[in-house]
Amino acid sequence: MSNMDRTRAEALLATDGLDGMVLFRPEAFRYATGLQAGVATMWGRAGSAIALVPAQATERLAAVMSDHAAQGAKTLAGTIDIRTHRIWIDGVTVDGAGSIADIDAAYRDSGNVGPRPETFDQAACFRLLADLLAEHGLSKAALGVDLDFMPAADFARLKAAIPGVDWRDASDGLRRLRLVKNAREIDRLRKAAHCAEAGLESLMGAARPGVRVAELSAAWLSGARQAAFEGGHGLSGHWDYISIGPDLQDAGASLGEGDLIKADVGTLVDGYSSDGARTFVWGKASPLAEDIYKALLETFLAGVEVLKPGRRFAEVHETMLSTMRRHGFREYYRGHFGHSVGAAAGIEEWPFLSHGNGIVIEPGMVLALEAPFYANGIGALMIEEQFLITPEGAQTMNRLPRELISLG
Amino acid sequence: MSNMDRTRAEALLATDGLDGMVLFRPEAFRYATGLQAGVATMWGRAGSAIALVPAQATERLAAVMSDHAAQGAKTLAGTIDIRTHRIWIDGVTVDGAGSIADIDAAYRDSGNVGPRPETFDQAACFRLLADLLAEHGLSKAALGVDLDFMPAADFARLKAAIPGVDWRDASDGLRRLRLVKNAREIDRLRKAAHCAEAGLESLMGAARPGVRVAELSAAWLSGARQAAFEGGHGLSGHWDYISIGPDLQDAGASLGEGDLIKADVGTLVDGYSSDGARTFVWGKASPLAEDIYKALLETFLAGVEVLKPGRRFAEVHETMLSTMRRHGFREYYRGHFGHSVGAAAGIEEWPFLSHGNGIVIEPGMVLALEAPFYANGIGALMIEEQFLITPEGAQTMNRLPRELISLG
Repeated sequence: MSNMDRTRAEALLATDGLDGMVLFRPEAFRYATGLQAGVATMWGRAGSAIALVPAQATERLAAVMSDHAAQGAKTLAGTIDIRTHRIWIDGVTVDGAGSIADIDAAYRDSGNVGPRPETFDQAACFRLLADLLAEHGLSKAALGVDLDFMPAADFARLKAAIPGVDWRDASDGLRRLRLVKNAREIDRLRKAAHCAEAGLESLMGAARPGVRVAELSAAWLSGARQAAFEGGHGLSGHWDYISIGPDLQDAGASLGEGDLIKADVGTLVDGYSSDGARTFVWGKASPLAEDIYKALLETFLAGVEVLKPGRRFAEVHETMLSTMRRHGFREYYRGHFGHSVGAAAGIEEWPFLSHGNGIVIEPGMVLALEAPFYANGIGALMIEEQFLITPEGAQTMNRLPRELISLG
Repeated sequence: MSNMDRTRAEALLATDGLDGMVLFRPEAFRYATGLQAGVATMWGRAGSAIALVPAQATERLAAVMSDHAAQGAKTLAGTIDIRTHRIWIDGVTVDGAGSIADIDAAYRDSGNVGPRPETFDQAACFRLLADLLAEHGLSKAALGVDLDFMPAADFARLKAAIPGVDWRDASDGLRRLRLVKNAREIDRLRKAAHCAEAGLESLMGAARPGVRVAELSAAWLSGARQAAFEGGHGLSGHWDYISIGPDLQDAGASLGEGDLIKADVGTLVDGYSSDGARTFVWGKASPLAEDIYKALLETFLAGVEVLKPGRRFAEVHETMLSTMRRHGFREYYRGHFGHSVGAAAGIEEWPFLSHGNGIVIEPGMVLALEAPFYANGIGALMIEEQFLITPEGAQTMNRLPRELISLG
């Protein structure tokens, strides 16, 4: 199922003067079509998976994809116009074959014969796109492309292959579109946050004097995977930034009395990445660490207060930075105190809760809010949660307490 | 430490008529400089980490990198000319701070003050690059860029920011450079292959009637991680494509009598990815599966025979495809029977053992050779190993038997 709101897309495209969008980034392809982009996208090159989104919401989506990936797409054949190209992977479907000759016959019966390219045939993919554009009357149209992804070498070839189109950058429009989530996306982000926090509980159980980052990371992942298994869904990815103790460059640090543990972690459910962080201390924190944490917690809470529909992204940054200032931090400066989550092209997603950002908070956004502090000589401290914006305000997707959590 | 052979680079650049290379892909940056590119590369945008490789081998490497990533780069400051830019992450180094005022003083003492951008400041990065180019007398030079990575949107900005340079595509030259590995790279690939196979041994131990792909995947990862831990190094990544039984689209399949298990897996050690595959059967395979496996094994062995210095990549493809033909597979067609390994921008690395590929095999290459067969209705079967090319021929980095392995 596509997660793109075609009605919003139509409005955005009209604003930007575009007749449609042609999306090449695997994550964007999946967002628009609901289909897996397939293994031929592993090199980050453009063409193996292409989504065509006509501006008019009632016009059917179209996709160029590999024969290999299309095997998993049969149920969507009615709703999406799929054109396939052959990639390097040989494959055949047999029914009751008893011999190699039977297998050979199955290739021929299905028409699945002939040479395959060494990876994928980009020129063939662009020709399939050209066909689709011609059929949609878009061969001379103004079309938006995700130029924040498309490699420059490939863009030069696309322009040469389909010279009539006025190719424009649709990166920004696509981001605005992805910023408001539907119920299915929100559910994935909720599940992802749940698994990440289950991982943190597992990490807490693994803390003991002498424990190292690698072991805490393994404990985190094991808890997150277990929660995913219990939830009846897998994880399509995971990431963690865990630190122990005062030396932030020491990846081999082991836990001692009074050491801080910062765990900034996320899991991906069906490609949607959560983002959240907690800070722990083994035994008792130093008075200075307690003071810093107090400032961060109040900064975080002040941010939650303004994380409401109608407020601008910049107001959250201003509120949080000024709260740090009030606690005596005159030189501390974060470029952002949070961001949208979900697209998973990086962990942190545009737009950011940053200085001067005029974007207005709306219901349906899912935003991570973060108050971090990194000091070599003290350690890392951080509070981060992800919030669903509702008409009433910010609803957290997390459950662990926000206080500095003492272990041991 | 850089893994780039500057003498080979100088020769390649001379052949291509280039005065130097400017590399933006995080993996290429790390290859050229030995430095971690840092978190600001997470969005796949160009600029946060840039390596400048002057053509002359004796000229010092230069790098643009974030202040955050540069903290881990101090030991290389002598060998690489590093210019830093501020990113969104606040950080400070303190020595014996007792109060927030002491922390504030530490910021000021180090000159680490002022606003930070919401992510990274691409224009500032390009200005630092322009400075470096001017200092090296390269402001009007012909420079190679990895345009197979650089987003088209960023390339347009780079050209506008530094208009005097004749920017050319160096993607192909860089691939040729990476194709021959040094001893350190070979060691990483050996370790990565070792961990992946330890994972396969763990997977074999986890096989039992009813087991599912997710459990085999977890067992694989656990064995691979354990081997990395015992080897005293971590894994910087891992991937697996595991299938069970005749339905290749059924990710939830459970193991039954006679079912094939195909495990195509790899781990990354310091960014270098192994690639290898084995096939298992629960109990006894069908006579047809045995026949297919026999053809694949002989195809694989025929490929190993020609995997020698002086032979062309195409010869390996021709030999393996004709061996399949001799076993009765008249319609089977693989686009490639293997590829270089290590760069990890995708799992499979250019160049490929493919039809018509005139590249000549040389000592120091590390190549994965693969003989796979996928049939819905039968299952997946595959043999894959990675080989170091020595003057005498192909030396495997794997140890598990090549035969179809019966479990249970």
